[in-house]
Formats: sequence, C-alpha cells, structure tokens
Amino acid sequence: MTWASILNWQMRFSGSVEHPEVQAVIITSLKPRIFCAGANIYMLGTSSHAFKVNFCKFTNETRCAIEDDSRASGRRYLAALNGTASGGGYELAIACDEIYLVDDGNSAVSLPEVPLLGVLPGTGGLTRLVDKRKIRRDRADVFSTLAEGLKGKRAKEWGLIDDTFTTSKFQSSIDDRVAQIVNLRSDTKQASPVGIKLGPLTVGAGLVPARSDSGERAGTSPAPTDDSREYKYVSLKFHRDKRYADLTMRGPEAGLPASADEIRNLGDDYWPLRAYRELDDALLYLRVNEPEVGLVCVRTEGSIDNVLAVDKTLATNREHWLIREIVLQMARVLRRLDLTAKSFFSIIEPGSCFAGNLFELLLASDRSYMLNNPDETVEVALSELNTGAFPMSNGLTRLQSRFLAEPKKAYEAFAHEGAFDTEAADAAGLVTFAPDDLDWEDEIRVAIEERTSLSPDALTGMEASLRFAGPETMDTKIYGRLTAWQNWIFQRPNAVGPNGALTNYGKPTQAKFDYKRT
Amino acid sequence: MTWASILNWQMRFSGSVEHPEVQAVIITSLKPRIFCAGANIYMLGTSSHAFKVNFCKFTNETRCAIEDDSRASGRRYLAALNGTASGGGYELAIACDEIYLVDDGNSAVSLPEVPLLGVLPGTGGLTRLVDKRKIRRDRADVFSTLAEGLKGKRAKEWGLIDDTFTTSKFQSSIDDRVAQIVNLRSDTKQASPVGIKLGPLTVGAGLVPARSDSGERAGTSPAPTDDSREYKYVSLKFHRDKRYADLTMRGPEAGLPASADEIRNLGDDYWPLRAYRELDDALLYLRVNEPEVGLVCVRTEGSIDNVLAVDKTLATNREHWLIREIVLQMARVLRRLDLTAKSFFSIIEPGSCFAGNLFELLLASDRSYMLNNPDETVEVALSELNTGAFPMSNGLTRLQSRFLAEPKKAYEAFAHEGAFDTEAADAAGLVTFAPDDLDWEDEIRVAIEERTSLSPDALTGMEASLRFAGPETMDTKIYGRLTAWQNWIFQRPNAVGPNGALTNYGKPTQAKFDYKRT
Repeated sequence: MTWASILNWQMRFSGSVEHPEVQAVIITSLKPRIFCAGANIYMLGTSSHAFKVNFCKFTNETRCAIEDDSRASGRRYLAALNGTASGGGYELAIACDEIYLVDDGNSAVSLPEVPLLGVLPGTGGLTRLVDKRKIRRDRADVFSTLAEGLKGKRAKEWGLIDDTFTTSKFQSSIDDRVAQIVNLRSDTKQASPVGIKLGPLTVGAGLVPARSDSGERAGTSPAPTDDSREYKYVSLKFHRDKRYADLTMRGPEAGLPASADEIRNLGDDYWPLRAYRELDDALLYLRVNEPEVGLVCVRTEGSIDNVLAVDKTLATNREHWLIREIVLQMARVLRRLDLTAKSFFSIIEPGSCFAGNLFELLLASDRSYMLNNPDETVEVALSELNTGAFPMSNGLTRLQSRFLAEPKKAYEAFAHEGAFDTEAADAAGLVTFAPDDLDWEDEIRVAIEERTSLSPDALTGMEASLRFAGPETMDTKIYGRLTAWQNWIFQRPNAVGPNGALTNYGKPTQAKFDYKRT
Repeated sequence: MTWASILNWQMRFSGSVEHPEVQAVIITSLKPRIFCAGANIYMLGTSSHAFKVNFCKFTNETRCAIEDDSRASGRRYLAALNGTASGGGYELAIACDEIYLVDDGNSAVSLPEVPLLGVLPGTGGLTRLVDKRKIRRDRADVFSTLAEGLKGKRAKEWGLIDDTFTTSKFQSSIDDRVAQIVNLRSDTKQASPVGIKLGPLTVGAGLVPARSDSGERAGTSPAPTDDSREYKYVSLKFHRDKRYADLTMRGPEAGLPASADEIRNLGDDYWPLRAYRELDDALLYLRVNEPEVGLVCVRTEGSIDNVLAVDKTLATNREHWLIREIVLQMARVLRRLDLTAKSFFSIIEPGSCFAGNLFELLLASDRSYMLNNPDETVEVALSELNTGAFPMSNGLTRLQSRFLAEPKKAYEAFAHEGAFDTEAADAAGLVTFAPDDLDWEDEIRVAIEERTSLSPDALTGMEASLRFAGPETMDTKIYGRLTAWQNWIFQRPNAVGPNGALTNYGKPTQAKFDYKRT
C-alpha cells in the first residue's frame, strides 16, 4: 500500500472492518522509490493558512489512527523504505511499528522541513522522534536540521530506523519479518474473519454532492448556497449568516440485532458504524468547507432506550473483531470531534437521546444546555461504554476529564439508577446550564450570539488549552504543542512571506530571513 | 507586597535568600483596589511581537517561581483580593496557594482576554484553571469568555477562589489565615534565619550599563556597538555580524568555605549564588536585548576539581535553608536556559570545567562538541547534584531526559569513576560530537554557520518540541502548549491587525474579526 493509498484507506474505510484478515501492513513505495512530502511542499507553499492547518491536523489523525490500530487491534505496521523517506514520508514511517531502510549507498531518512522550508515536521515528526522513538535530543536536533538526512548505518545507530538491508536482500528480509509477525499472530487470532463492504455515504438528494474525500480535496469550499447537508443519521443545518450550524445525530431504531453474526449481516448499515461514519464525514466537511461556521450546536433525536440497547450489544460482544473495530472507529470519530477547531454546545431538549455513546457528544462539547421543564421529559443517561470504550487523546475517559477535581463524581454518576432528569443531571455535574422553559430560548440565542462574536483565533487557542486537562500523551503533545508551534510558524513571514522559505522552495529565488529570534 | 513589587522581587532577589524568615506572602492591592493587567494591555497593544512573547514567558517564569518557592521552601502564597482581579491579576492569584476575594457586591475575578482582547490568558491562566485548580472544563469555558467574570459565591462554588469575606471582615479573615499558617510552620521551621543582602551585579567598566531590569524594560535594544558584556563569573561576547554569542561561565576559585555559616558570611559573593545570578541576568539580556543573536556557544573556564568541591559543599549542606535556596535558585536559572528561544551549543575544550552543576549547561544545550585530542586534557565530570538537584520543567533530571530510551545509561554515567575524557564521554553518550583537533575548528565554524542560516522561527518551534520529551507537567504545558498558541494568536490579524481586538482595545474604534476558524 503506498502512502497516498494508505491516507485514503484511513480516511475512507473507517478503521479496518473491511480487511480484518490483514495482520501486517507494509508501507512501501512502488516507483519512483522515494517517500516524500514533495507534492505536499508545493501544495503547502501555495495553499491558505487554514488549509495548511487542516491538512496537518488530518494527516496527524491518520498517523495516530495507524498507531491506534496497531495498539488496539494488533495489526503491525512496517515501513519498508526501498528509497529515501523524506519529510512527510519519514513522518509516516515513524508512525509505524518498525522501520526498515534499504542500504543502497544512497537512500536515507530525513526531516528537511526546518532547513529547507523554514517550517516544522509538524505532522507528528518532532514529537515522535523524542517521545516515541526516544532519540537523544541532541541527535534529534542534528537530524532535524540536516536536509540530506542519515543513511543506513548511522540511522540505525541513532535509532531512526530498526534495521537496514542491502538492495539484493531487502525484499526477502521484509518478507521474512512479515512471515514472523503473521506466524506469531496466528496463535491467538480469531479464525479468518471476513470483512464487510463499506459503501459510500449517501447524502440526501438536492444537497451538495457527497464529499467523503473532503480531507483530500480540501481548500475549495462550495458556494454557500445550500443550507443543509443530510445523511441517514446525521444532519447538518447551516446558519451561515449567524456563523453557526446545528449538527443533529439521530439515534438507532428499535430492535437492532444483538448478536455479532446478525450485525455482520447488516454490514455498513448497522447504526453505530453508519452513524459514526456519517459524523466523521460531517466533521471533516465542517472543518474544510465551512471555515466561517465557528460554533456547532450538537443535538440528538431518538430514543434513549434504543441507544442503550445498542450500547449493551456492543459491550456484550466487544471481544468479537467486528464489534471491537466498530467501537474503535466510534472512539476515533469522537476524538476527531475533540480536535475540531470549532466551539461545540450540546443542546438537550425533549426528544433528545444523549445516552451512552451519544452522551460522549455532550461530554466532548465545550458547554451543554439542558432544558429544565417539569412538564416534559428531558433526560440523559450513561451506559457501560462511558467507562472506557471511548478514550480521549489524553488517555482518560471524558467523564474522568470532566471530574478531574472530584473523581468520585464519575463513580457516583455511574452508580445512578436509570436516566437523569434535568435537575439530577445538573446536581451530578453532568451539564453546564439548566435554564427553565421561560428563559430557554433567550438563553440559547444569547449564548450563540455571544460565542460567535468572539475572536475565532482566541477561541481556537482557548479550547485547545481547556479541552485536554490532566495527563499528556504523545497524541496530545502532537495536537497541543507541535500543532500550535506549526500554526505559528505557518503565519510567520520567514515561512510564508514573499521572502519566506516555503514560498521560495523550488523556485530560483532564495529565502531571506528576518533573523530575530522570538 | 503588590503585584508590581512581587514581579520585581522575583526578578531581582534571586529566590528568597534575603528574607528567609518570611513564612507567608500576601499578594494584595493598595489602591486602587484592582488587580489587573490594564497597564499590560496597553503595553501589549503597542509593543512588538517579540516583546509580547518575551513578556509572557518572563511573567510565566515568575509565576512558576512562586509555585516552586511554595513547593520547595514551604512559604505559602495568599492572594488577598480586596478588589477585582482581572486578567494578569487573576493569573497571578491562581499562581498562589490560596485565593480570597472580598464580597463587596462588586469585586470579581475574571479572565477577559478572549472576549475583550482576542488573545489568551497566556501567562498560565488557562492551564492553571483546568490543571491546577481543576475547574470543570465547561465552567472554565464559560469563565474564560465572560468579560465581567464571577463574584464571590459563584466563584467559590466553581472553585475559582477558596473563600470570600465581606468587606468588614476581609482584613481580619486574612490575618487569621496568615496566623494559622505561621503557627503551623513554626513547629518545624529553623530558628529565625537571617537573610543575606543581595547587591547589584556589577558589570565590567566600559561596557553597557547593568541592565538587571532587562525583563521589565524589555523591547528597547541598545545600539549594537559593544561587543561584550562582562560580569565577575560570566562573560558574553557578541559576534553580531555572525548572529551568535559566546557565553562563558568561569568556575569557582579553590578553597571556598565548606560550612553554611562561612557561606553565610560570604553573602552574595559566594560563587554558586553570584555566578548563577549573573547567568540569569545574561540570559534575560540575550532574550530581550539581542534578538538577532540566534545561537549561544556555551563555554566554561576553570578547574573541574573546584566545581566538584563546591557541589560537594552544596550537597552536604543542602538541608540548611541558605544552601537549599541557593540550589533552588540555580535550578530556576537552568530552567530559564531550557526555556530560552535561542540555540545553545556547548563547546568543550582544554581548560573548560563542565562538571557537576556546570555539566547541566552541557545537558541543557541543543548539542555539544568535545575536542578529541589525546595530547591535551579535555574532560567533563558528574557530581551528586546531577542526580536530582536541578529538575527540568518536565520533572526529570537532564540526564534522565537525555537517556529516555536507555535509562541505565544515566546510572552507568554516575557509576563511572572520576572525570570522562573525550572518548569516554562520547562512549557514554554524554556529548554529541567529538571531532579531533584537525577537524575541530572547521567543524565548529561550519556548525555555527549552518545553525545561524536557518529560519529562526522554525528553530524556536523545533527546539521547544525536542527539549521536553517524556512526561508533561503543568509547567511544560504552560510553556509548550499555551505559549505556542499565544504566540500564534499574537500574530493573527484578529488580535494585532488594524481591526484586531488588541489594537483597538480602549479606543473608540471596534474590533472587526475575520471569522474563519482555523
């Protein structure tokens, strides 16, 4: 699988429900034998700041998804570098479990972003060097400033690759390693599972065409003439003049199957798989195509009991490969929401079903508003899946993150019998505000107006700082620290000004720097 | 002590060797009774990007020093807010151990940076909200977007303050709390230590005037006519045309006293105190007054034995309050080096004394070059102080950070008998490069030329990403994550453009935002 196609695979195929039989993924190159970000460099040099930021975030999510797949599903990823791996190519390689480089006297690994482009290896490169591969920081410093990179022997000595093989032995060595991995895994794996086919996500007639490739074709916004985007279970309604959107998730139908075999037969139409694939697409669509929509009001519609029934099925069958993959996919989509640079307000009204997996939407939101009207049924509920099935990038559950100061509140919430009405939810600390029906409409309207009046940049930095309290992981470092630095550098004249390195890369003109360090 | 004077105190008085008898520090306001960043807002609105970034970093270091003093020396910090604490004022308050707000129907705490200025509470505010005080993130979101902030009852309920007292009872309640703290500490403290007087740092005649206030008067660079800055133990030599500087630290004399009482009599002239105060001043000077100097070549001169003798004295007497404070001060200065946005190369030659505490300079550097010449004595050495006396912001020692991948190498280095010659240091992984005498001059020259040719912005982001591998702490989050976001926002037109919120604050004109979220 080549680099382009693995990006595509991660984006389109929602984890690995289509090919569960695959036990090792080799990332290698056909021809030319070079792994690089060459195309990206030109693309970055000519694209908008917003696109650069979105592109880096998306490819970071792809790399983290590879690592999630390796960790959680046990599929091993091998980078078989049969040519030079430079920039984004090497950043993809260090997302793999093992890296092998051909020793042909010429091929090298390198991160030339700093010396050649005046920007960072920002799709995880720097963080993975010192945090994942634990390269000594002085060596990481040398490597990251050396445009030509390092070849086999030195690269291995410094820990940048795991091994190097001569050209004649390269393919057989990779084959041997893959055979080892597959044999090792054969002992424990389930007998030959057969994947399910994932079809495209049909978007409602008369609306904008399906853009499930929005991550790739990003940068070209459709004319803002359509005011909604409809999927089967997800609906986006744009209020562009007010710079916000409603994102509604519809809960599952009643009576969904409870056994893995029946679910397997439902295929890509099974609610947890379909609804979260649609949510994923909607989030990418919002990021790339709706830059002026700064606030997303998250709503749900349906039956709490039906959501809890689905969660029970998922929890009961979570050892089954398909259910495991579906839950992992849901977790990745929820993390994509955490990492989306828009404000999220959850709105809890009669008829909503913020329960179990959908309760994570509420917890992932920056705030929540729950109607307090004793004459109507307004409820939220937890399920077993809220206890650990959907970890955030910081490794905590969203309930743990919420109750960092009072961990026992998370346990109390789980100990609660049945659903929470508004007053119970408020008392348990599960919602931010619980206005009564007299104030409800005004309060929501004012909250939306206030939020959308604020500086979008300040909000992005504020949310990125507030959403991930507690422990840090390699993932949060990549998204919090490295992304923020890269965003800064992508703004600086030394990168993108007329004399900047990114602007002048590949041109006869030379970059000229303002050497003031800040 | 007021806000301005505590900043001054932290900056000028090198920890608390002058007033060890102080057991509680009350941060309160004289008149007007308002704690705010008002002056800073105007200052930030009119100052350069570089100054804004330097200012935020410096005040972050001040707040972290307060917390370090509380943690390590047991002095308690109380914010006695007898008026509204807004922005930087509240950011200072949450650096304290306890926060008390007057309940006068009017006074509030607030972080109005996002709603009023389009920037972040970037001197630790957002991080301390969710990581130190563990405010629920939805409440932190509401608080950080509410220009007017929250008053007593709600502020206490949300955890933003520890208690609130009516105007008539405010002073007596604070007094009571201070009495409690002092009584509690009296049980364990040493009998009334008497502080030592810290004089100004004399800078050599004929050079630029002493600017130990460089942190405050930052932004105005002196004309680059002087090519050096001399202290007693520290020397800066500027090569401005080549955009680098040599920073040389001279080791201690032989025969320094070995008992705490004798050290007390030496006062501010005791080498560890004086040399590190000078280093601190030199680092601040470089940050603020030499923006084009992108690389600092760190050198040492003196006797390794003398440095090790001083370290032995410090280790032996570290329970004594004065020695404890001196070591804490050295640790803070070394962390200031870690956080300085310039490249550092350590150059190890004959006559150098990178040993014990001065070996930390080498470990803190981005790279090190050690001459390999069998005909001369070139050595480095470790001391007991390298095992934990000087923690980095991530909580690790610099040796632990260096050997994240192979922790046993740190133990092996400590087990080594005596000093390391170049080959031993190289084999132990203590230095980056060990060129022989034929290559030495060329290699250093080329390394300097290459480093200073790179984009200064890319280097800043790269170094901030590579220097702090491993665990994250509140401090590293503040410097890595929050600072990076703030740097980005300080560049964005929505803050600093003609229509930006920071530009237009306090003017009759209104900010106009580009609402695209990125």
